[in-house]
Amino acid sequence: MEIDVVCREVGPRDGLQIVGTFFPTEEKIRWIEAEAAAGVRSIQVCSFVSPRLIPQFRDAVEVAKASLAMTGLEPSVLVPNLKGAEIAVELGVRDIGFMASVSEKHSQANLRRSRAEGVEEFRRIVAFRDGLPPEKRFKLASGLSTAFGCSLQGRVSQREVLDLAGAFVEAGTDMLSVADTVGYAEPFEVKALMTEFVRQFGKSADILAHFHDTRGLGLANCFAAYEAGCRSFDGCLAGLGGCPYAPNSTGNVVFEDMVFLFEAAGIRTGIDLDRLVPIREILARNLPGEPLHGAYAKAGPRSMPDRNRISE
Amino acid sequence: MEIDVVCREVGPRDGLQIVGTFFPTEEKIRWIEAEAAAGVRSIQVCSFVSPRLIPQFRDAVEVAKASLAMTGLEPSVLVPNLKGAEIAVELGVRDIGFMASVSEKHSQANLRRSRAEGVEEFRRIVAFRDGLPPEKRFKLASGLSTAFGCSLQGRVSQREVLDLAGAFVEAGTDMLSVADTVGYAEPFEVKALMTEFVRQFGKSADILAHFHDTRGLGLANCFAAYEAGCRSFDGCLAGLGGCPYAPNSTGNVVFEDMVFLFEAAGIRTGIDLDRLVPIREILARNLPGEPLHGAYAKAGPRSMPDRNRISE
Repeated sequence: MEIDVVCREVGPRDGLQIVGTFFPTEEKIRWIEAEAAAGVRSIQVCSFVSPRLIPQFRDAVEVAKASLAMTGLEPSVLVPNLKGAEIAVELGVRDIGFMASVSEKHSQANLRRSRAEGVEEFRRIVAFRDGLPPEKRFKLASGLSTAFGCSLQGRVSQREVLDLAGAFVEAGTDMLSVADTVGYAEPFEVKALMTEFVRQFGKSADILAHFHDTRGLGLANCFAAYEAGCRSFDGCLAGLGGCPYAPNSTGNVVFEDMVFLFEAAGIRTGIDLDRLVPIREILARNLPGEPLHGAYAKAGPRSMPDRNRISE
Repeated sequence: MEIDVVCREVGPRDGLQIVGTFFPTEEKIRWIEAEAAAGVRSIQVCSFVSPRLIPQFRDAVEVAKASLAMTGLEPSVLVPNLKGAEIAVELGVRDIGFMASVSEKHSQANLRRSRAEGVEEFRRIVAFRDGLPPEKRFKLASGLSTAFGCSLQGRVSQREVLDLAGAFVEAGTDMLSVADTVGYAEPFEVKALMTEFVRQFGKSADILAHFHDTRGLGLANCFAAYEAGCRSFDGCLAGLGGCPYAPNSTGNVVFEDMVFLFEAAGIRTGIDLDRLVPIREILARNLPGEPLHGAYAKAGPRSMPDRNRISE
């Protein structure tokens, strides 16, 4: 089945990383499996950070292994450094995201290194990738956290974002993940910045939009990014997630609402909404204290066909 | 103070019409007064429908009178027919909205008349307006409910919407209120339809966008409508509201989130968000059972200036 946009689920990673409760390994796997069966092809399943920093990911290897065995799924993992990439490749992962921040302050607080040191580490991962035999080579994405502002630093200029992106492209990235880590983005700026991304880097790398819904603009930002030419989008089922540096943040873009945004307009995601929505149950039973967000799950489908489903 | 967009509060009307609890008259007035003081210039304060149909509006005359006495506020009222318009003019109201639906089924269910009968009634109101002495003449808006689909009829074609709008323009309307009454709209269609509205009718009438956030797309739709050239937008504080024909609907676009959407981007609304948000308290204490929606109120301002407030 052909698709027009990639809607990537990042719940098992971004949705869980600040959740205190440990989400049982077999339930993480059930969640990922159920989404794969609903047509979700791209899921970021875990992060290879130290379990001392984020105990939620102490089962990262097990979750990655199980995900790699699922039919039709391309699991991706997030890594902070070369070490994480080496572990991922050893397991057979072919889609790796590298963590980096545009804000110098956020880079220091979150990753304990400067932006320049981040680019250096990224170059080491590229060299590692390029030295692998072709069948082991992986798709490498570079993160651009706090691309729309930072709760520690305040404003982040578009110039800074584009400069860092340029450094990653020059180093050999396959994808640029433009992230509104703290929920500051608004669609007018999103459209302007993403238009520049597509214009400057669209031929060298895929452009992915990662938004949080902290101030209610997550889906408006997705629409603006789509209009700018972006075709890959992150979200979390039930809008899980948040950022330790954004108090009261209301999580990532609600994944099922984002799928509805596109499907309603006839833009194919490959995902079956009727099968996606009930998966929220897995979250509800494993995260009893956590609020589940999302409008579509409450309202249900429209009593008219989505444009995708019109055969008239 | 100059403004770039009109953000109209419709909470005292659309937000309350399906609420069972009677919102005390003096509290409605306090709410309207507080918003006027926060810089909201345009508020739809009530509906002149029969109190037998909607008991919430049994104090419509009192609320309209009080609102007319407030400095800097242009209160508008909604009317189903000529009778309502006559009452409004008698009180001194200068901004009147006429109720009509694009969906024939919704028109019958909600207004107990056909679309054609609606246009006839509208013509009578225009004749009444044009016969008034100049100082009593009012701004007349025509509603286009269910412009993006109808829970009773299903799909509503753009042709139908534009034809009915054309009839109102020909009859002499000052404003076209394009309403997603049941929360079916998505931004791709919004942009397409609103672009047609601005192109065909933008010189004859103001174009107003009225969205519900039923499936999470309310603010994305506002952004899309703005991009199409629309400059007037409805919302309800705390996302109150809903439609009797849209079960589980989650209300109108959250007014304060909509103000943030524009202000964050430097588009002036004239409204002070810091003064607007605390007004939710008035709703909380008068509607104890009702959920209050909204992301901005929870997350608070960004720790960087909105573009509006940058003097750099």
